Order: sequence, then structure tokens, then C-alpha cells
Amino acid sequence: MSVCRARIALGRSLTHSRPQSVLRTQPSRRYASTESSAPQTTSPRTQSKWRTFLQLVGRVTLVTVVGSGALFYYVARKDRTPGEQLPHDPTKKTLVVLGSGWGATSLLQKLDTTDYNVVVISPRNYFLFTPLLPSVAVGTLNPHSIIQPTRYITRHKTRTVSVIEAAATDVDPIAKTVTFADESEIQGLVSSTTLKYDYLVYAVGAETQTFNIPGVKENACFMKELDDADLTHRRFLDCLESAAFPGQTSEEIDRLLHIVVVGGGPTGIELSGEVHDYLEEDLRNWYPELSSHIKISLVEALPSVLPMFSKKLIEYTESTFKEANIDILTKTMVKEIKDKSIVVQGPDGTKREIPCGMVVWAAGNTLRKVTKDLMAKLPEHQTNRRGLNVDDHLRLEGTSGSVFALGDCTATSYAPTAQVASQQGSYLARVFKLIARRDALSTELQQLESQGLLEGEKLKQKEDLVRQLEKVEKMKLFKYTHEGSLAYIGSEKAIADLPFGVGNLAIGGVATYLFWRSAYLSRLFSLRNRTLVASDWLKVRFFGRDVSRD
Amino acid sequence: MSVCRARIALGRSLTHSRPQSVLRTQPSRRYASTESSAPQTTSPRTQSKWRTFLQLVGRVTLVTVVGSGALFYYVARKDRTPGEQLPHDPTKKTLVVLGSGWGATSLLQKLDTTDYNVVVISPRNYFLFTPLLPSVAVGTLNPHSIIQPTRYITRHKTRTVSVIEAAATDVDPIAKTVTFADESEIQGLVSSTTLKYDYLVYAVGAETQTFNIPGVKENACFMKELDDADLTHRRFLDCLESAAFPGQTSEEIDRLLHIVVVGGGPTGIELSGEVHDYLEEDLRNWYPELSSHIKISLVEALPSVLPMFSKKLIEYTESTFKEANIDILTKTMVKEIKDKSIVVQGPDGTKREIPCGMVVWAAGNTLRKVTKDLMAKLPEHQTNRRGLNVDDHLRLEGTSGSVFALGDCTATSYAPTAQVASQQGSYLARVFKLIARRDALSTELQQLESQGLLEGEKLKQKEDLVRQLEKVEKMKLFKYTHEGSLAYIGSEKAIADLPFGVGNLAIGGVATYLFWRSAYLSRLFSLRNRTLVASDWLKVRFFGRDVSRD
Repeated sequence: MSVCRARIALGRSLTHSRPQSVLRTQPSRRYASTESSAPQTTSPRTQSKWRTFLQLVGRVTLVTVVGSGALFYYVARKDRTPGEQLPHDPTKKTLVVLGSGWGATSLLQKLDTTDYNVVVISPRNYFLFTPLLPSVAVGTLNPHSIIQPTRYITRHKTRTVSVIEAAATDVDPIAKTVTFADESEIQGLVSSTTLKYDYLVYAVGAETQTFNIPGVKENACFMKELDDADLTHRRFLDCLESAAFPGQTSEEIDRLLHIVVVGGGPTGIELSGEVHDYLEEDLRNWYPELSSHIKISLVEALPSVLPMFSKKLIEYTESTFKEANIDILTKTMVKEIKDKSIVVQGPDGTKREIPCGMVVWAAGNTLRKVTKDLMAKLPEHQTNRRGLNVDDHLRLEGTSGSVFALGDCTATSYAPTAQVASQQGSYLARVFKLIARRDALSTELQQLESQGLLEGEKLKQKEDLVRQLEKVEKMKLFKYTHEGSLAYIGSEKAIADLPFGVGNLAIGGVATYLFWRSAYLSRLFSLRNRTLVASDWLKVRFFGRDVSRD
Repeated sequence: MSVCRARIALGRSLTHSRPQSVLRTQPSRRYASTESSAPQTTSPRTQSKWRTFLQLVGRVTLVTVVGSGALFYYVARKDRTPGEQLPHDPTKKTLVVLGSGWGATSLLQKLDTTDYNVVVISPRNYFLFTPLLPSVAVGTLNPHSIIQPTRYITRHKTRTVSVIEAAATDVDPIAKTVTFADESEIQGLVSSTTLKYDYLVYAVGAETQTFNIPGVKENACFMKELDDADLTHRRFLDCLESAAFPGQTSEEIDRLLHIVVVGGGPTGIELSGEVHDYLEEDLRNWYPELSSHIKISLVEALPSVLPMFSKKLIEYTESTFKEANIDILTKTMVKEIKDKSIVVQGPDGTKREIPCGMVVWAAGNTLRKVTKDLMAKLPEHQTNRRGLNVDDHLRLEGTSGSVFALGDCTATSYAPTAQVASQQGSYLARVFKLIARRDALSTELQQLESQGLLEGEKLKQKEDLVRQLEKVEKMKLFKYTHEGSLAYIGSEKAIADLPFGVGNLAIGGVATYLFWRSAYLSRLFSLRNRTLVASDWLKVRFFGRDVSRD
């Protein structure tokens, strides 16, 4: 009882803090004179104000900590314990989603599942936050911090969503079927099957483009999936350990510790920056004998890195890299990647072979086989070598509105970025709400029309339905809103190109780095991922990155 | 200035809190009567005591949080930034340590490196906290939380310690050499070499014993290295996803979701318990349609599980497992492990084939090839098939004191546990301190004796040296002190058998689980590992375990 009372008093004193501070002046002065025997250089009034202020700060802090802790626990608990779901309803249409990347996940988050029986098929049972992949490659982040199981989203939906870990092997837009197979190590008796869909969302993404350059597949690491980041991490530490092997010549140490990154897009830039941070902040401590040998080179075929950024920021990146001792080789084409070297052709046309320990390939996208097969089935409409042709509603050309495609597998005027795919996914969620409405109205109309000649009330009803249907069918077109470009460039600096009014805001530096961090944190889909990434950043701040090659 | 003053007052009021609380009664009562208009059910005196008490709690909390935060930062910072080290000294003897497990790491932690040029050779460049491996296998802990790079220890030593990531391929106790090779994917020009040692510590551990049972190597997962835990995790999630594949028969789902653990030692028991927790706490939420199909069986050849624990605790474990629906099959021999089943022979001698999704093999140790080769080179002294014969000073028999062996590769009267190896490592660190002293005295004595006939002062000096040498050579024998056995058995329960006076304290339950957690936390070698493991436990408490198959 007295605990309650004390709490009430605490709460009240917070809200009425201003009048209290006046009331308290008197007794607080008494404290000071009774308790303190130290020489008094400040007036009792100042001290009392300070005291009141500190008490207020203390209380606000306490209430904030307890309150946000409780909220955090509540949200985490709710995320963790999904409730009962409605079962699949045979009268509803089947919506199949292929993929679990930016497009598919953004769609699933927003989709109203009461209208459909939804089936998600993807070879990965999780969503991967790709922009932070370079951080995983050097061990700044734990792989599990940037992934979110697809079921963590679908299990919170009103109606059950089937999530199937399988790769789509065939899409038949005529028969409206998808064939998919479990391609993992462990398989059940049934490991391949075909499913009929009413609507299909095709969001399978792309795979890494190697331009058929010899040796890329065999000798380079990629930066697309979680396994790629893991392999890059292992190889990098392997290079270090091999360089530390007793009796290695100085020349061979230089080779082993030369890291080449191919591709001057955000991924290549961020990876170079992260590798540089790793060297500066961690390896210098644990491998002091090797630190002077390490070298990073960035190879780009175009005349400049980061073409999506303004000239000022490109120059800022170049000068930051120069300070960080990262070589940028622009207008340089990769001709071959060998086991222990990379062959490049410089701007003057001469080829040279550069010895190196490892190459990370972060250049370009190409279509997956299943996408090429799908295009071959629609020869009249799908002839664009860049990707699938879609209309302004993201409907796949030649499928009369039953297939939608988005993200990196499509050929649009937008760049193949997470931002575009994500906005397309949200757009489609709205479209499917309208489609459900349209389909319901059409069915109603058909039932009415099947009753033969309509008169009076019924005719009015029909006209009303037709009007509603016309309204629904005027769906808005997809329109992309560019929210800006961000990239981390190492040395605790980032660059940002943000649309601002009619112009652009181009900023770079340490403040932008904090902005980069908070922007990425807010982009993560769940409280869980946000907490994990933030705690990983804290860990690195306190303990540095790990140098174990596990 | 006034901030300082306020802080001083704060600090003082903390130490003199008792008299203050008396002094404050008066003014606090005034507050209550002025501020509060709520009905007064407690006396103003009680409320004022509460207020003073809460203020005290608040201050103690603040000082504790700030103080421990600063200490934490200081220790983490110090761990992270090792200073300059002395270089190797050609006049010092070379001490080669093979291994980076419990024995080697415990030795390296305690060893005084001023006396030796130390070289550590191990195929893993980190120490693995093996008792927590089952937690990694189900995703409770992040793999990196339970490993510590060997360099994090050696870089803090006075003299440089060479750490080489390589596997010892040959030990020649006659020529006193070790040959080792870099067996990883990336290799430099030099990838194999031979090193001469003065002293060798042989701590290579053991590998998993398969008893030549067909199919174990091909089809089972192990629980020895970090990769094993990773594979177990992946396969387990793979079984789930294959069971969730559409059209799977109920019988096949039962097979895929039957997990068999072989070995009733602490590893097998903890793994079964952890898998059970995973099912209860996580999978039920995300795969509700599968949760009723999951089954765990534990197979043990002996008549009972956990033979190192008292009968009472074994019974407690058995009843906990029964409640948790984990089948224990004792007196059951594994005859073969197939792709989709395990063949066992029960206590009545009949064989039966049990369908299952995966088998985890956590049974027994056997000697590594390099250990067997070493034994073959000392045929007169090393004939024990269980392991290397060592004397009570851990000196390898037949090597006249130049080779020491410890841990799972030796045949002693102690169990092959982390506790034994760890104590042996600490013991050897003390031994090497004495050996350095002995070697220094011997050298001095030899120099003195080489001067020919000694008289007067010199003779006295010699006698003194001989006496000192005799004292040093009486090294204490290694003696193992059993600190008790601990095991987690799932459902937030643990068991502990602790030596207590002349008897034993056998406890089990939820409190023991908290004891288990704190004991393991304190056993971890660094603040970094402790923080990481504790934060992983917190994460699981808030967000559950991940079900992504990365």
C-alpha cells in the first residue's frame, strides 16, 4: 500500500514539477546547511535549483527507461507470439508469390490476406537486408541480425499463408501453374510439385552478372547472398593467416594481402570502406606485423564510381579513399580472374596482371534461368534482353493481368534497387485489394445478369454495380518516388544525395554516417532486426570485430 | 562549478544516508502536506521514509550504473588495444604449443612468456568454448559468442607469441621437430614447414569416435567443432522445411521430424534439451502445423545416461525428459546409420530400423592420426591404445622431459573433460616457470664448473646453486581437483553434482539452471565472450530463436 502511495506521489511531483521547485527552495536550503560542511562557494539558492533539476532529470530518466522497457517488451512479445489464423478458403482465389526479397516482403507486409489464399515460394525462407551485406562480410554485423524469417511476417496475417522453401523451376502463364522443387540437402518423399494460381507475383530478383569473363565464377567471391558474405569473410581471414605463415616472402605477403573489389557501385564502395575499417580498427592490433602490407584496390569499367551520386560526392569519396589508401582504378576492364591474380585492361588499352589474394565481384545483375524460360514462353511480348516487360500496373505483358512482376527481374526505367522493388511491393498490395473488390463485383454482376432480363430495382442494382466496377478498374499507375541515395564509404564517413524541394541535398561526412546508420535502422522491417543490428554496432564499438576464421 | 558541488553533495549524502533520513523527516512531511491532495491513508512519516528510501535506491543505482559502465568500457578498451611486445630472443628456448583447446588456452593464459620464444600451432585460430556448442546448434547462441581468437590472449603477453594456423602433420621427438601445414583453401608459396623445439606441449585433443559403425561419417552430424553445430542447425531447419513441403504424407512428416541423438553424456543430454526448448518456445509459433509431429530420441549403449552424475540426478533427468516427450533408449547399440533411418539393437538383442530425419552423433573420442604416428615413434613407451602415456608431471613417457602432453590425447585416470585439460594447462604454466629457473641455474652451474677447481667463495656459490636446483627440481605433481559436474537438461532446468565437504551436493531444477548459466558465464575466458553470451541469452528471451536457414 505504501509503495503505491510513494509511486503516486512520484508521478504527481513529475507533472507539477515547476510549482514544486518554488515550494522546495525553503526546505532544500535547510538540507544544504544541515548536511554540508564543505566551503560554500555557490549560493544555497543555486544549489537548491541544481538539486531540483537533477531530481527532475532523474525522475524523467527513470520513467522513460521503465516506460520504453515495458513498450519494448510488449512489442517483442507480440511479434514473437502470433495468434490463430483463418485457414485457406477454397472459395477464395489463389495468389502465389515467387521470391522473398525486397519486392515480395514489402508486398507481404502490406497485403490483406483475407481476400486470398496466399502461397509464398522461395529458395530462402527469410528476407535478407541486402544493403548491410558488406558489413557482414567483415564481421561488423552478425549474419542473423540482417535476416528475418518470412514466417515472422506471414504468421501475423489474418489468413494462413503457406511458406514453401523451394526454387521455382517452371512458370506456365498459359495453364497458370508454377512448378517448384526442394533443392536443399534433405528432401522428403515429395520434393517437387506443381501448383495452379489465379494470380502470380513474380519477384525472383536477379543473379550476379559475370559477363562470361573467364575465372569469375571459379575464383571470385560475390556479394549477393548471405553465403557470399560468409565466404568473403572466411577467405579474407584465410589470406591473413596464410600471410602470417612462417617463412613467407615479403612479395608473397604483399600478394596475399592485396584485396581487389570489382564494381564501383554502392556495394563495391561500401565493401572497400568496411574492409579498410577492419584493417584500421582491428587487424592492426592483432596482426601488427602484417598491417603495413595490406592494400585495397577498386576496379570499375566506367569513368567514375557511384554514377547515381552527384559529382561533389564522387569527388568526396575519391579523396576519402585516397586518404584511406584505397586505389580506385576507373575505366579499367577485368579480362580474367586467375587463382592468384587478376588481369585488367587499363584506359590506355594495355593489359596487365595484378597479383592478389582475393577478388570480390560486386558488378551487375543478369536474369535467372527461370525468368529466361518464362520469356521464351511469351515470345510476342517478352523480347527485352534486360528483363521482363511490364505495363504501368506492373502486369506482365502477354498474361492478361494474371501475372505481376517487379524488382530486379523486370526491365523498367528505374534502377534495379531495393527502394524501387520495395515501393512496387507496397503498390501491389494496394492493387490486390482493388482486384479483390473488382472480382467480387464482377461475380455479383454475373449472377445478376444470369437472371435474364432485368427491370426496375434489379436494373438499378446492375447499373450501380457497373459504375462501381468502372471506378475500381481505374487503378492508379505505379509511380516511383526517389527518397535519395546513401552509401557508407569507410572511416566513419557516409555520403547522401537526397531530393530536397526542387533540387538535391548532397552531404558527406561523419554526421551523414550517423544519418546512414539511423536510416538503415529505420528501414529494417522489425524491432528484432533493429535491436540486433544496433547491439552489433555497440559490440564492435566496445570489443572490435572478431578475427576468428570459423 | 555548481555541477561539481551538486555531485559532491550527492556523493556525501550516499555515505551518510542514515543520519540524513532522520534529518529529513521534517521537511519531507511539509512537502507531503503542501503538494498532495489525495486522501492520506499512510502517515506522513511512512511516506517520507519511503521517499528517502527511493531516493537512496535511485542514487545507488545511478552510481552503480555509471561506475560499472566506466569499468566495463575500461576493461573492454584494454582488452582491445594490446601494447608493444618484446621480440623473440634467440638466447631463449623455443616452446611450441600444439593446439588451441582447453589445455593449450589455459596454459597460454597463465604462461610467463619472458622466459621462452613461444609458438602456437593449431588448425583453428581460436579457442572454442565447447560446453556451449549444443546452444549454438539450435541458434540460442551466435557461434562467434563462444569463440575467442587465440591472438586476443597472446597479443597481451610480454613477449611476442607466434600464432600459426596450421595442422601438425608430424612430430619427431628424437630430432625435436614439428612439421605442420596450412590446410586451408588459400595458401601462400610456403604452406608447409618444419620447426625445431626445445620444449613441446602436445595438446591436440581428440576426434570423434565412430567405432567404425557404417554410415556414421556419411550421414550423422557431430558435435565437436563449430562447423558441426552449424551443420546440425542447418539440417534441423532443412528437415522442418522439407516436412512443410506441400503434399508430404503424414508418415513422411513424422520421419523428417524425428531427431535422434546418439550418446547419453552431457553433450547428448544438453543437445536434446536444447532441441526440445527450441520446439516448445519457437517452432510451435512459426510451424504450428508441424509441432505435433516432432519427436526426439536419445540412444545410449550403457544402462544409464550421464554416468558421472549421482543416481538421484539421473532419475531427475529421466523424469524431466519423459515430461518433455524425449524418449531415452538405454542399453541400445547403434548398428548402422542410413540416409533416412537408424538401425539399432535393443537390450533384448533384436535389431530394428527407426525412420528419422537426422542423427546427431555425440558419442566418444578417438586419437588423431598425428597422435597415433607419434606413438609409433616411441614403441617402447607408448603402447596404450587409449592415448599417450604421461607421468605425474605430464611429461610424455620416452621423451626425457622435452615433451609434455595433456587433455583428451592422453591416457590418464581422469575423464576427458574440459575441466581436467584446463587444470593441466594451468599446472604446466607453473611448471614452465620452474623449468626456466632450473635451466638458468643449470647454465650458471655449468659455467662455474667449467672454471675448474673451485675454492672459497666460488665453492660456496656452487653449493648454493646445487641446493637451489634441487629445490626447483622437486616440482609438485599434477593433482586434479574436481569442481563438480553440470548439465542443462532443457525446460529451463539443469543438474549439478558438486563436491561439498566430504560428500556431494546433488541439485537439480530451475535454480540450478541459473547457477549453470552463471557458472558458464564465469568460465568464459574474457569480458567480451561473457557479454556476448549474456546478450545472446537476453535476445532469445525477448525475440526467440531464429528459424532462418542461412
